[in-house]
Amino acid sequence: MKLGELLGFRFKETPSDCQIASHILLLRGGYIKNVGNGIFSLYPPGKRIAQKIEQIFREEMDAIGGQEVMLPVAMPASLWKESGRWDAVGSELMRMRDRWGSDMVLGMTHEEAVVHLCRDAAQSYQNYPFMVYQIQTKFRDEPRARGGLIRTREFTMKDGYSFHTSQGDLEEYYAKCHRAYENIFRRCGIPETVSVQSDSGMMGGKVAHEFMLLTEIGEDSLAICGACDFRSNMEVADCIIENEPRGDAPLAKLATPGIRTIEDLADFCGVTGQQTCKAVLYQINATDELVIVFLRGDLEVNEVKLRNLLGGEVHPAVNAADVLPCGYIGPLGLPANVRVVYDRSLKGTHNLVTGACEEGYHFTGFTPERDVPGIALNDVAKIPDGGICPACGKPAIQVRRGVEVGNIFQLGTKYTESMGMTYLDQNGKTQVPVMGCYGIGTGRLMASVCEARRDEYGPIWPMSIAPWQVHICAMRAENADVAAAANGLYEALRAAGAEVLFDDRKVSAGVMFSDADLLGVPVRVIVSPKTLTRGVAELRTRDKAIQKDVALEGAAGEITALVRELMKEFAA
Amino acid sequence: MKLGELLGFRFKETPSDCQIASHILLLRGGYIKNVGNGIFSLYPPGKRIAQKIEQIFREEMDAIGGQEVMLPVAMPASLWKESGRWDAVGSELMRMRDRWGSDMVLGMTHEEAVVHLCRDAAQSYQNYPFMVYQIQTKFRDEPRARGGLIRTREFTMKDGYSFHTSQGDLEEYYAKCHRAYENIFRRCGIPETVSVQSDSGMMGGKVAHEFMLLTEIGEDSLAICGACDFRSNMEVADCIIENEPRGDAPLAKLATPGIRTIEDLADFCGVTGQQTCKAVLYQINATDELVIVFLRGDLEVNEVKLRNLLGGEVHPAVNAADVLPCGYIGPLGLPANVRVVYDRSLKGTHNLVTGACEEGYHFTGFTPERDVPGIALNDVAKIPDGGICPACGKPAIQVRRGVEVGNIFQLGTKYTESMGMTYLDQNGKTQVPVMGCYGIGTGRLMASVCEARRDEYGPIWPMSIAPWQVHICAMRAENADVAAAANGLYEALRAAGAEVLFDDRKVSAGVMFSDADLLGVPVRVIVSPKTLTRGVAELRTRDKAIQKDVALEGAAGEITALVRELMKEFAA
Repeated sequence: MKLGELLGFRFKETPSDCQIASHILLLRGGYIKNVGNGIFSLYPPGKRIAQKIEQIFREEMDAIGGQEVMLPVAMPASLWKESGRWDAVGSELMRMRDRWGSDMVLGMTHEEAVVHLCRDAAQSYQNYPFMVYQIQTKFRDEPRARGGLIRTREFTMKDGYSFHTSQGDLEEYYAKCHRAYENIFRRCGIPETVSVQSDSGMMGGKVAHEFMLLTEIGEDSLAICGACDFRSNMEVADCIIENEPRGDAPLAKLATPGIRTIEDLADFCGVTGQQTCKAVLYQINATDELVIVFLRGDLEVNEVKLRNLLGGEVHPAVNAADVLPCGYIGPLGLPANVRVVYDRSLKGTHNLVTGACEEGYHFTGFTPERDVPGIALNDVAKIPDGGICPACGKPAIQVRRGVEVGNIFQLGTKYTESMGMTYLDQNGKTQVPVMGCYGIGTGRLMASVCEARRDEYGPIWPMSIAPWQVHICAMRAENADVAAAANGLYEALRAAGAEVLFDDRKVSAGVMFSDADLLGVPVRVIVSPKTLTRGVAELRTRDKAIQKDVALEGAAGEITALVRELMKEFAA
Repeated sequence: MKLGELLGFRFKETPSDCQIASHILLLRGGYIKNVGNGIFSLYPPGKRIAQKIEQIFREEMDAIGGQEVMLPVAMPASLWKESGRWDAVGSELMRMRDRWGSDMVLGMTHEEAVVHLCRDAAQSYQNYPFMVYQIQTKFRDEPRARGGLIRTREFTMKDGYSFHTSQGDLEEYYAKCHRAYENIFRRCGIPETVSVQSDSGMMGGKVAHEFMLLTEIGEDSLAICGACDFRSNMEVADCIIENEPRGDAPLAKLATPGIRTIEDLADFCGVTGQQTCKAVLYQINATDELVIVFLRGDLEVNEVKLRNLLGGEVHPAVNAADVLPCGYIGPLGLPANVRVVYDRSLKGTHNLVTGACEEGYHFTGFTPERDVPGIALNDVAKIPDGGICPACGKPAIQVRRGVEVGNIFQLGTKYTESMGMTYLDQNGKTQVPVMGCYGIGTGRLMASVCEARRDEYGPIWPMSIAPWQVHICAMRAENADVAAAANGLYEALRAAGAEVLFDDRKVSAGVMFSDADLLGVPVRVIVSPKTLTRGVAELRTRDKAIQKDVALEGAAGEITALVRELMKEFAA
């Protein structure tokens, strides 16, 4: 198509309120337009990329036996009441009432809808296993939409659901799907994406993996072992602490006026953070009940582990100062009715400094196993950078940031059981199938590729998902020779089946090239009066790997061969 | 794919609450599943048909220069407030509040969203004309969802929007789009679809056409001239009445106890319906104000014309009997404050029977132009079957029913003006672009094709949109020869690029054939011990046009040639 006819526009300025590169470049390049908080429209280049990504989803899902279906965006709340998620999920779930006053929801994920679709259709063991998927709009009323397409409220997602007659069969299929996901990321141009163990959150189930693109702009913290292949979301990584033996000392109260932080306390006492025991205060969302977490002073609380331990969502405590001497809280002298969680980092510690539960005072010489004997120790701390790998035991954990570009879950029977999906096994006995689910968002993947494949001038789209394959810049197209040569090339390339963007606008070379950089098409061909004097066009790849002249005669053939060559890396 | 692995099931019984054939067959054939009132999921065969239809949409829209974009399903109400439709549209518009209490809507059509997308991107006359389209989920909170996919609340739609610098340019493009729509219906297998003039309803604008598939199950009434090419939705067809000259008589009050209907009245007085003047009572939705429509007794009120005349929605009056002598209402003796509309069918009438505005009495001898002189006459009647064609003047109107499978509108500047979309013309002057919009729903089209192309056993899908092209029935597949031959054919056809459904289940011939009928695949190939003794497979088309043996050797080639042949009818 001709660039002059393409809907959208490109610009130089960094839009306000944009922090991350993909957000800036997708706006500046005319790929997306913000419609509301976390809601975007796609201009044609964005839509073209999305379609190519979705075609890769289809091919990879079909290759592992997936059957494409379509589930509704808006559905009766009754389905979510059946599964229990109407009550269990918070305000992320968009709720509404129809003209008859019936409760409805917008699908943020489709376990309920897919069980509804499949439960009549798979009543015999002979129907299993099977996997269905859809590519459909979803809405999640995110409190913190951010980063353009990285975290939106409305998004298009490929969500797949598999059904099995045994956990073993699910695990086998899950591994197959894991490989399909690796293929997807490779084919979309980010083969460096890694999978990490993850928390299953509101989805239920035990085993889950997230596919992470490592990048500083990521919202997730990952624990990655430098010595073995252990990789985990921090949320679920075991925190193993080995405390060095240390002598005891008697408990003694120490005046610490105005000393409220662990850093100040360690300084004041001349000890390290490891030699302190700190308190972190939470409240349980559902009841407002206060929970005090005690852990070694140099560590952080992992709120996901805490939530899983307590069986409900938590938030940092508010107004706790009304009832407790904040900054001076310790395990000794607490009111009797306060709920306390001890982290296992306190195991084997001796002679710590901790709060005395009295404004302005701490204890020294606190030895948990001596002073609060019999307490339960639980793992609720974040694994620290340099920490011990739970898999190989070496202190080789690196904490990295990543964007979650996909996830897979072993759901078990959470939905099939609650929604009454059953089948008859070979012995005529009623059984409940086990489920897996497999999600990946189109827009976030597009933005992630843009994060990973770009330079300061724009995205460098991989050939597999680029909006066009070839971008012709006809410089000084008012020159009849340039127009004829460029048009000829355009027609020849289109006839050869290439996807071509043709820029014959009367604009400066600067505008032409900066637009081409922002559109990120992998192969660029420049025709100008200067190249014509040499009987050539100039060929450049967007990633600068290739920069050479091609004879005008036969240029279309050479260029399409290059397109095919560049596509190989992303083949199925 | 193997039929035994296909998700979904087929059954014989007519599901309860289903009146129309496509609804019944799409349920019985395992294409759709009802999720809620007017909300459906698609099983794989339904999804496959939908995708093929949508690919035809894409090709035809691209062929007239359309650029595919993506607009949100859920959008901020602010956009609809800008255009005025937040207030103008009733409860069909699904409204909701997000977590911050902001009003949002689900898109039932996307004029607002598309103007939002385009208004920054088309600020110069050089950007015009252009057309963008999307294929996206929509939600319309229909009070009367019915007929399976014929009228749903959630549906997938191809909606296109064109922008122009003049009405003339819009009209030229509108004609192009009209031809593209004809192509779409031909390529989807219902070339008999006709376009009719239509009301633009809540869309605004003046000129609009609906594409109608003529069928008894249609919800729309159409006026189609048998003598010329006039075709119109009844809603907007001018009703031309030529009353024959007739002598006057003096007004006289007649006791008509218990006579409340026009039929009874005509019988009682020994006149025809044409010799009466009847009253039909409405209320204006917004104000509850009563409106009495007087028209010739044999005609019906056209509520769309009435709405357009009054400038607001109306509904049949309720509780009017409290204030008026219903059954006896006439133009004479009405309370002063009642709003009255006279239909132009009363023009030139003489000596009618009409209500006397007194319980139990009518007037005879009523001559409107004499007895209520100076009244305004408006066209608010439905054109009757056999009525006068507004185009050629012959009494050749046939009233037919049709399903609206697409529509196109010349919108004018309703949205661009209200939403502040402008461009600079060649003289640097600010102008407002004119818009067209072009809609077509995937599901309703699928159901309409099913209505038009079926027999008592199932759908007869056109090759262009059939879920598969070839359906192999391997009868007695436990027979090793059958299995080998059928498998060989399956693999050879797949290798040749055909879309094949392969039934090698151990089921009776009856089940196998009734399932094949319900799946409606155009080409069926039967391999059985009997056909093998002759060295052949049996080839049958679903429409019974072809039924013959093909030598097993070379069968794949012959079958793929047939597929290509059957596809020709639907070529772009």
